[in-house]
Amino acid sequence: MGKYQQIQLFSPGKRGQFKLVSLDSRPLKSDEVRIKVHFSGLNFADVMMRLGLYPDAPKAPFCPGYEVSGEICEVGTEVIGLSLGDRVLAGLHFGGHSQEVVAPAWQVRKLESEVSLELAASLPVSGLTADFALGEMARVRSQDVVMIDCASGALGAILIGLCKEAGVTQIFGLTSKESKFSEIEKRGARPVLYQGWCAPKYSADVIINSRGGETLLTHRQSLRPLGRMVCLGASHMVGKGSLSYINVIREFLSMKKIGPIDLMNENRGVFGLNVLKLFEKPELLKASLERISKLFEEGKLSPVVDQAFSPHEATVAWDKLAQGKTMGKVLIDWSQL
Amino acid sequence: MGKYQQIQLFSPGKRGQFKLVSLDSRPLKSDEVRIKVHFSGLNFADVMMRLGLYPDAPKAPFCPGYEVSGEICEVGTEVIGLSLGDRVLAGLHFGGHSQEVVAPAWQVRKLESEVSLELAASLPVSGLTADFALGEMARVRSQDVVMIDCASGALGAILIGLCKEAGVTQIFGLTSKESKFSEIEKRGARPVLYQGWCAPKYSADVIINSRGGETLLTHRQSLRPLGRMVCLGASHMVGKGSLSYINVIREFLSMKKIGPIDLMNENRGVFGLNVLKLFEKPELLKASLERISKLFEEGKLSPVVDQAFSPHEATVAWDKLAQGKTMGKVLIDWSQL
Repeated sequence: MGKYQQIQLFSPGKRGQFKLVSLDSRPLKSDEVRIKVHFSGLNFADVMMRLGLYPDAPKAPFCPGYEVSGEICEVGTEVIGLSLGDRVLAGLHFGGHSQEVVAPAWQVRKLESEVSLELAASLPVSGLTADFALGEMARVRSQDVVMIDCASGALGAILIGLCKEAGVTQIFGLTSKESKFSEIEKRGARPVLYQGWCAPKYSADVIINSRGGETLLTHRQSLRPLGRMVCLGASHMVGKGSLSYINVIREFLSMKKIGPIDLMNENRGVFGLNVLKLFEKPELLKASLERISKLFEEGKLSPVVDQAFSPHEATVAWDKLAQGKTMGKVLIDWSQL
Repeated sequence: MGKYQQIQLFSPGKRGQFKLVSLDSRPLKSDEVRIKVHFSGLNFADVMMRLGLYPDAPKAPFCPGYEVSGEICEVGTEVIGLSLGDRVLAGLHFGGHSQEVVAPAWQVRKLESEVSLELAASLPVSGLTADFALGEMARVRSQDVVMIDCASGALGAILIGLCKEAGVTQIFGLTSKESKFSEIEKRGARPVLYQGWCAPKYSADVIINSRGGETLLTHRQSLRPLGRMVCLGASHMVGKGSLSYINVIREFLSMKKIGPIDLMNENRGVFGLNVLKLFEKPELLKASLERISKLFEEGKLSPVVDQAFSPHEATVAWDKLAQGKTMGKVLIDWSQL
């Protein structure tokens, strides 16, 4: 039993700040493994948590974080298929921004090939989100026209990859900056400037909406008959300057409710997805983690890393993601401790 | 050019009544065919129209009706694949309750085998609805648990048939009367009494909701994570005694709007379907009509007929459907003219 460092969030809200805290390792339960973490991935939910805007967050101080890569340094007595020294990725319900992580074996996937641990830490949340949104909710088909409204970010790369894997040939990638066009094209989607995307100029069978707010209505109007939109959140808020409690509430209120009669007259469907709530459903999460890990190791899903920060630079990392200017995953690199 | 009889609806509303009207045949356009109608099918929309509660209905007097079977008695100059004497079924946008029907060829399907014209007239609306709801919106998969809330009616028979065709083995059929259990079992679903269906006792991946009203919320609560509900209408109203304008408005207002944040927290989706609006999309309608006609002729979809009425008994036929007690299709039989 040793000691390890962990990034903890203190006083979430306007003054939300991070401290590196030293902790004692705890004994494993029989179904758990201990991971020496190499990289931890940042997500939009982490940004919300820092601001105290995430209702399901634990009481502060706590350690946020949903995804890591690293190597197994201890194995519970009843764990099958994971061994000491295995290189792994894991999807976690909090606690990922830590030098050491303990997790039930079903949340951990062994990496069979020599893939980069930097990329592996960038997969779980984007991968699960994309797989649930496109594969399980929209049930995308090869002939669908798909529109992705976060094409240039970390999630966008995985969404585009999953579409291509499903045989989809018509993928529109929305962005608010023309400077991101070449990156979106490289990923395999047709870039469209956000202001230019409107019905009836464009239409799609499947729309992935991560922006929320008023785009819920404008995007829905671009759905073809029999089409579906999957709503992932409200990242739209980020681009609006100050991310205050008042602004967030205003943004959430601007997500107009949907009338069933309207949906009937439009012949359309709307899904809502919150992957973090699915940690209550191990069988769903495990199956999805298996699917995306397999595609990742086969080189069919390529996460994109924006930048890796030292654990001492947590605030800088958080700020960069909050500014909405990243083109891939923001990571914490524990080798820089 | 001859004369033909047609059921027309006069003064929709409380005093809505039907008259048999004699009309002169009109010349065909080049892409049309003329059908000598044997049977016309009744639908819930016809009931609503009689009461003046259907916003998209033409100005009265007019001829309602969406589906017929019969034989081709004249073919437009540019029509390919349909010939004089062909036995056919057709999906129509109004005008079906008529001894003679003129329709664009794409709305008409030739029956290759010797299937009954009574059953053929019962297929189009239920078949299109079931195909769009299960195949195109829900995109049902064999491992799904499916719940059908109108299992004992005409649509229920086709929905159950399509589920079985998709390999679904777990089909729940809701009914409000235990006397309908054996019929639902015969069709291939597991009958559940309406009062007994509740979350978390039962749950499903796909829910077909034809009742509307407060069931939109109660059914949604029975959806598993990643599940979807397809809303078809508000037949619930029928069981509520007097079907007045006030009651219908009350019923529609009771369909609470759906919050996108709620959908996210629930990880669920909701579709709305109105097949009649899809007549504006010939390519969708034509493809679906082809799919269901093929399955019908292969014996894989079996419409169920409740009763066929003489055109002189239109009021009796309408009343029977409005009372919500039918176990299959109500037809008008033009041989009884």
